Amino acid sequence: MNHYVEKEVKKVDVWKVKKYVCKVKIIDIFTGKKIIVLNEDDAKEHDIYAGFRTQIRHQGESHSAIVDVSKELVKAGEVGVFRDLATAHKLKKGEPIEIVHMDQPASIAYIKKKLDKGTLVNGEIKTIVDDIMNDRLSEIETSAWITAAYINGFSDSEVIDLANATVDSGEQLNLGKKPILDKHCVGGVAGNRTTMIVVPIIAAAGLYIPKTSSRSITSAAGTADTMEVLANVTFDMDEMRSIVLKAKGAMVWGGGMKLAPVDDKLIRIRHPLSLDPEGMLLASILGKKKSVGAQYVLVDIPTGRGVKVPYVERANELGKHFLRVGEKLGMKIEALITDGAEPVGNGVGPALECSDVLEVLGGKGPEDLKHKSLLMAGKLLELCKKVPSGKGYSAAQNILNSGKAMSKFREIIDLQGGNSRVRISDLPIGKYTQVIKCEEGGSIFHIDNKSVSKIARIAGSPRDKGAGVLLHRTRGDRVEKGDALLTIYANSESKLDFAIKAAQNLEVVEMRKMLLGSMQ
Amino acid sequence: MNHYVEKEVKKVDVWKVKKYVCKVKIIDIFTGKKIIVLNEDDAKEHDIYAGFRTQIRHQGESHSAIVDVSKELVKAGEVGVFRDLATAHKLKKGEPIEIVHMDQPASIAYIKKKLDKGTLVNGEIKTIVDDIMNDRLSEIETSAWITAAYINGFSDSEVIDLANATVDSGEQLNLGKKPILDKHCVGGVAGNRTTMIVVPIIAAAGLYIPKTSSRSITSAAGTADTMEVLANVTFDMDEMRSIVLKAKGAMVWGGGMKLAPVDDKLIRIRHPLSLDPEGMLLASILGKKKSVGAQYVLVDIPTGRGVKVPYVERANELGKHFLRVGEKLGMKIEALITDGAEPVGNGVGPALECSDVLEVLGGKGPEDLKHKSLLMAGKLLELCKKVPSGKGYSAAQNILNSGKAMSKFREIIDLQGGNSRVRISDLPIGKYTQVIKCEEGGSIFHIDNKSVSKIARIAGSPRDKGAGVLLHRTRGDRVEKGDALLTIYANSESKLDFAIKAAQNLEVVEMRKMLLGSMQ
Repeated sequence: MNHYVEKEVKKVDVWKVKKYVCKVKIIDIFTGKKIIVLNEDDAKEHDIYAGFRTQIRHQGESHSAIVDVSKELVKAGEVGVFRDLATAHKLKKGEPIEIVHMDQPASIAYIKKKLDKGTLVNGEIKTIVDDIMNDRLSEIETSAWITAAYINGFSDSEVIDLANATVDSGEQLNLGKKPILDKHCVGGVAGNRTTMIVVPIIAAAGLYIPKTSSRSITSAAGTADTMEVLANVTFDMDEMRSIVLKAKGAMVWGGGMKLAPVDDKLIRIRHPLSLDPEGMLLASILGKKKSVGAQYVLVDIPTGRGVKVPYVERANELGKHFLRVGEKLGMKIEALITDGAEPVGNGVGPALECSDVLEVLGGKGPEDLKHKSLLMAGKLLELCKKVPSGKGYSAAQNILNSGKAMSKFREIIDLQGGNSRVRISDLPIGKYTQVIKCEEGGSIFHIDNKSVSKIARIAGSPRDKGAGVLLHRTRGDRVEKGDALLTIYANSESKLDFAIKAAQNLEVVEMRKMLLGSMQ
Repeated sequence: MNHYVEKEVKKVDVWKVKKYVCKVKIIDIFTGKKIIVLNEDDAKEHDIYAGFRTQIRHQGESHSAIVDVSKELVKAGEVGVFRDLATAHKLKKGEPIEIVHMDQPASIAYIKKKLDKGTLVNGEIKTIVDDIMNDRLSEIETSAWITAAYINGFSDSEVIDLANATVDSGEQLNLGKKPILDKHCVGGVAGNRTTMIVVPIIAAAGLYIPKTSSRSITSAAGTADTMEVLANVTFDMDEMRSIVLKAKGAMVWGGGMKLAPVDDKLIRIRHPLSLDPEGMLLASILGKKKSVGAQYVLVDIPTGRGVKVPYVERANELGKHFLRVGEKLGMKIEALITDGAEPVGNGVGPALECSDVLEVLGGKGPEDLKHKSLLMAGKLLELCKKVPSGKGYSAAQNILNSGKAMSKFREIIDLQGGNSRVRISDLPIGKYTQVIKCEEGGSIFHIDNKSVSKIARIAGSPRDKGAGVLLHRTRGDRVEKGDALLTIYANSESKLDFAIKAAQNLEVVEMRKMLLGSMQ
């Protein structure tokens, strides 16, 4: 109903009443966020409060920013602008800018919908992702969305929408070639450096595999940390494209490219509470794979005690979920459920893992790492129909044994700016070492991934490339008291001492004895 | 298993490995948060990342702070300390302080438990509240907890634990008298200023009613905003105690005291998404009542179209919830389900509402406000057994008609530093006015609370005390085209114009016509 008013009213937009002009004061700090500071009285006068979203308008352009208020730092008529914003939008001291209060972004309603157990449809997820990318949602709001996704779950269509929005949030690799293969490991297994063996085998087989990897957040090393011992891993999209077009394979750090950047923003919020809503996990992984143009993707789901997916039943569900969503995203997926209860390979920590990798590529090395890598490379060769079903493993083995995988690995190292002639003796292994011995005899029943990772991390890994743990025993080994169990490597005596102390306090190994007791 | 090590290890606490000393650099900004800025390389070297919790140790004291990192602002060996922290802990430029990385606080596990649909027991909620009060939880983590409470709900025992933790988070009013009465309104009704009539009646009846009220967040005025037209409302606990011991009643702003401060921190997080988990709402309300020692509490649950509780069934559930939890907190509660679909009284906005209150206390005034206030005061008198059941309304009416409530009101105004002889003509009503007329004839079927509040707010309420809306009609009135519907008051012509524009755009009133059509 339009009410009847006698007075002629000036033409103003009532919804933009919260608007005023003030002068820029530069605050010489980088905050990493888009924040402006208003004078508290100015803000109150215009009904604007801390946490409100505003647009700042300057020379015909609009940018969003979150409001903070201050009584002292910013005087009436001023707006405090942190260096980030000032640089990004070329704001100068004393310049007038217009502050316009914005209504809540559309995505607030969609977040509420998810909180109320609704299903997001028709671009609603895309809108949320856009608002996150443009800093229109606060950490509080994004956290609520992630929490709701964790509790209420995502439908397949929501996962697909999020994966596509994740792709759209960043740059994409267009090789103009096919087929393109890729692999991913759900993670949690110490020393599990299969990527650095699988990629050279696949590339040596003549197939494209532009692999991006992460750095470690809480584990001892990510593939990017380990590859970095041998070569540069930070490249932009054009550089990566050039490497892959030459070698067919690459092993680079995903964070170096503008690939799926919304994922980084989500991980920042998910990390403090280790919130891994399955739908977000899938969208993140498959969004990144789609961003590099992958058509055939092998997903390794390590399963067992102490890793993310403890039970095979759960791994089966997760695998099916990957297959369903992958198909709708145009990717052919194979999910491998692998035994992840113990570390793979002997070394844990960047340089020690490189040693395992070079050994395997040289035809020797830890059997478990070699076998798992061949299994995975073989499955990939079968998945894209390069070799017939059942022939993948032996095909991968032939490539490895022929030395072609090692040549390819060295070619990639060279293209990524490393020393292609690197030998194991060149690796920067930590100089301070300590052997930890078995306290009692028996049969090794379990080696704990998390404890091994923690010791390696306390020893300095992944920042100290040479720090880590070398395991001398594997599950099932019979040991006597005093046998060497593992060696800790560190770059300083103090870090070594910390790591030794950690090894004494943690349950690294669980033993089983034959004789449990005797009575007379 | 303690592993067997040959080397003698220095006695160090491995869990505090992430520790280093650096020198204070003061950053001259108030952030309202406990944040320190570390040099990015220093932080990485010590495996500390943005968002990590640390303890800063200085002269034998420890304080928690969240880490931010910077490449430029803070040099290696320095720690940036914002003015808040520097002032609170007397840190000086160049002083050495120790940065100690803290493991996750215990409450992280309890938040995860709630996310996984668990019930928090045995002091787990108390721990979360303590961690929030001590800034050991980030906004991301607190938001996740509130979201989980919203989706998964709280059991009665959780609500009680939260209410008690809320009480413990702040100061408490100990009058040393009884009985102590209180009232609360769930809110959403424009102009609903019953508190300013109920409190004087109850106090005039010789009963203690130390009423704390809120300021408006999104409505046109809170009771604290309205009372502030007549008297000061900001007092500390001792001042309030002194007022109540003299007059038996007070009407002060709750935010002025250190009453249930965790509630303010939770509201800051709840507000952006308007998250009102019922359990948190109850704990907040009843925690505040318990903090002032209330034994008998009347809860007004306005119900109907456009308010928080739209249906009577829902209001019944909420009322029962209040009774159950209140009983376990040692409070006798009566819940009144009232018709909240339309504004109560004529004025909406601080000074206009004061006018209604003074009219009612003078024996006249809007019938609906008077009737509702007497109903509530009467129920309170019965609840504490001051008068027999069924006699409350008339007892309240006698106090009002005798002028004792008005005398008591003036006594309280005087004690709160206001002009006890204030008359309606003294009220600072806005000078710029505009009558809005009915555009069509018919019977008024509905007046929308939110639209009326919005117009009042755009006119300048509650900051401009004289701004607001005066309603000339109520539900059920028959009107003709051109009849005065409401008058807008403002302190400036521009705000008046904005409010007029809003009135034209909003559906303030819904009409019903007798004749819906005719055919020949």
